[in-house]
Amino acid sequence: MTLHKSSEPTITIALDAMGGDHAPLIVVDGADLYAKKHKDVAFIFFGDEKKLTPLLQKARYLNKNAIIKHTDEAIAATEKPSSALRSGKKSSMRMAIDAVASGEAHCVVSAGNTGALMAMALFGLRPMVGIERPAIASVFPTVLPEVKTVMLDLGANIECTAENLSQFAILGAVYARDVLGIKEPRIGILNVGSEDMKGHDSVRQAHALLTAATHLPGRFLGFVEGNDISNGSVDVVVTDGFTGNITLKAIEGTAKLITHMLKQSFLANFITRLGYIFAMPALLKVKHKIDPRKYNGGPFMGLQGLCVKSHGGTDAIGFENAIAVAVQMARTDFNKRVSEALSAIDAAQKSTRHG
Amino acid sequence: MTLHKSSEPTITIALDAMGGDHAPLIVVDGADLYAKKHKDVAFIFFGDEKKLTPLLQKARYLNKNAIIKHTDEAIAATEKPSSALRSGKKSSMRMAIDAVASGEAHCVVSAGNTGALMAMALFGLRPMVGIERPAIASVFPTVLPEVKTVMLDLGANIECTAENLSQFAILGAVYARDVLGIKEPRIGILNVGSEDMKGHDSVRQAHALLTAATHLPGRFLGFVEGNDISNGSVDVVVTDGFTGNITLKAIEGTAKLITHMLKQSFLANFITRLGYIFAMPALLKVKHKIDPRKYNGGPFMGLQGLCVKSHGGTDAIGFENAIAVAVQMARTDFNKRVSEALSAIDAAQKSTRHG
Repeated sequence: MTLHKSSEPTITIALDAMGGDHAPLIVVDGADLYAKKHKDVAFIFFGDEKKLTPLLQKARYLNKNAIIKHTDEAIAATEKPSSALRSGKKSSMRMAIDAVASGEAHCVVSAGNTGALMAMALFGLRPMVGIERPAIASVFPTVLPEVKTVMLDLGANIECTAENLSQFAILGAVYARDVLGIKEPRIGILNVGSEDMKGHDSVRQAHALLTAATHLPGRFLGFVEGNDISNGSVDVVVTDGFTGNITLKAIEGTAKLITHMLKQSFLANFITRLGYIFAMPALLKVKHKIDPRKYNGGPFMGLQGLCVKSHGGTDAIGFENAIAVAVQMARTDFNKRVSEALSAIDAAQKSTRHG
Repeated sequence: MTLHKSSEPTITIALDAMGGDHAPLIVVDGADLYAKKHKDVAFIFFGDEKKLTPLLQKARYLNKNAIIKHTDEAIAATEKPSSALRSGKKSSMRMAIDAVASGEAHCVVSAGNTGALMAMALFGLRPMVGIERPAIASVFPTVLPEVKTVMLDLGANIECTAENLSQFAILGAVYARDVLGIKEPRIGILNVGSEDMKGHDSVRQAHALLTAATHLPGRFLGFVEGNDISNGSVDVVVTDGFTGNITLKAIEGTAKLITHMLKQSFLANFITRLGYIFAMPALLKVKHKIDPRKYNGGPFMGLQGLCVKSHGGTDAIGFENAIAVAVQMARTDFNKRVSEALSAIDAAQKSTRHG
């Protein structure tokens, strides 16, 4: 990892400036918004120089802290992961990942093709020792203002073994504890009921593994259900990528449905439109609370380098949040914290076995 | 099935009057609300005579159309399915199911223990010919006022084969077409992406089975994602009981979260409280649209007799809706429609094979 003098930026973020629906504009604007508030972060923009240069010149807070590394190759939103991996070696996404692998940057942020990003990150950054499969995570709001739920995996692994799930529990708990600052994160495995005998083999075996483990970076509660994601009763929700991805999208869909219904109801007639004016302060507060941009930035966990996935359709504010997630993970040295947690569990297991 | 003269009720519903958090009160009140609007439905209340008699005497619209069959045994909410099956033969739940099995009633409605109800219904009513495993379904609102989505399975089967899933597709499509009156229901299999190659074996094989099938009671769209449940793009969403149950509860949890946030925001101060008064008409309209009581009544599909599960914590209005689902399934002769659909698909397959 490159060393910085104290007067220089302490964290360097590699940006895939060609990934996402509104790249490179929102990538530059998002970084500019972030740079306005934080002076100690440097950016490397991987992308088309001709497009990036004028955007960076217009940016108000990006100057000596931002450099461009040119490439005009981009991974298309529809490209298959295998093809991206094979033929995308000079793409902005791959070059940004490689910058993390080489130690030039602390974390990569991309709003591009999720499947391609996962495949390239897996290939370019490799899983950590002790983690078989990496996972994608995200943070969800709950009814308790002070509680946010970390859920993983959200789609990197369609099928998961008990070992995968229990490793996700550790990754999620370290994130909750060391990145989000939750003292003793409560960990739950997503299931159809909270009784021990319910669910299929891998969740029941993961339950046994986590019950037996000591020195976990949190407290294992057992099984939790779908409604627990948002009721504040748990800090880390562990599931396979199939269930996680469907649940994530069902939650987003439900939030959209209710927002849509509210809009329709307030637009209905003169009286309801008048009502809207009076209700606006309260409605805007809720809109802000569930604003998906606020929760943008899904960390890939369990790889030897840090990588954060932004929603493809987000705007500059959303991208700024993804950058904030990346910086927070780098600053708290997430991967080192995971290694320490894995070692502590491992040591405890060995001493039990030999003692 | 008992025959009725034209002046007599045409549909008889067996009610588990001891199941649910507020039984028998909400069971009697729910039936009374239903009887107020519909004169041609008879009820058999299975439960404690001493408790039911005074409640029925107070009911305004239940008189000659309601009878009590006494039992003072009830299945507890915490009882395991296996134990309920073994020792619950004289329970209100089991007796109500047996009334459907014997042809005394057209459909059973219970707000009791879901696992026990599923186990007893499976044992007492048996799967239909051509259906290996029954499923629990429910109806969900969408952004399009004219579209409602039927989703199944919501928890009866933790693991599902491709055959199970494709049979659920037929059950759900017949329900959408013949019970809900949707002309050519659009059927989708829940997956992590809409591309054909995604997802695990059973969803991919079910995709192949449904693509190959002709004479389906609807149009097979392929894979759909979690957000499609509520965006109006599909009428029937097919999934395994593990994913379905978690998704259902995550959707309910999200609706609760947003409702909670709205309430908190409007209660914040004098100005927002004033805003609430003006916003009330629009807010109440949305509250009504997503009212879980309106969607109460989860049909068990694929058994030789009809059974509808009510939420355990619902009130009389919710229970009335579960009765309405039961009556609608009985009146449209749901099981006959399923048999016809299965025969049509079967005949088409045979003629392809032999022709």
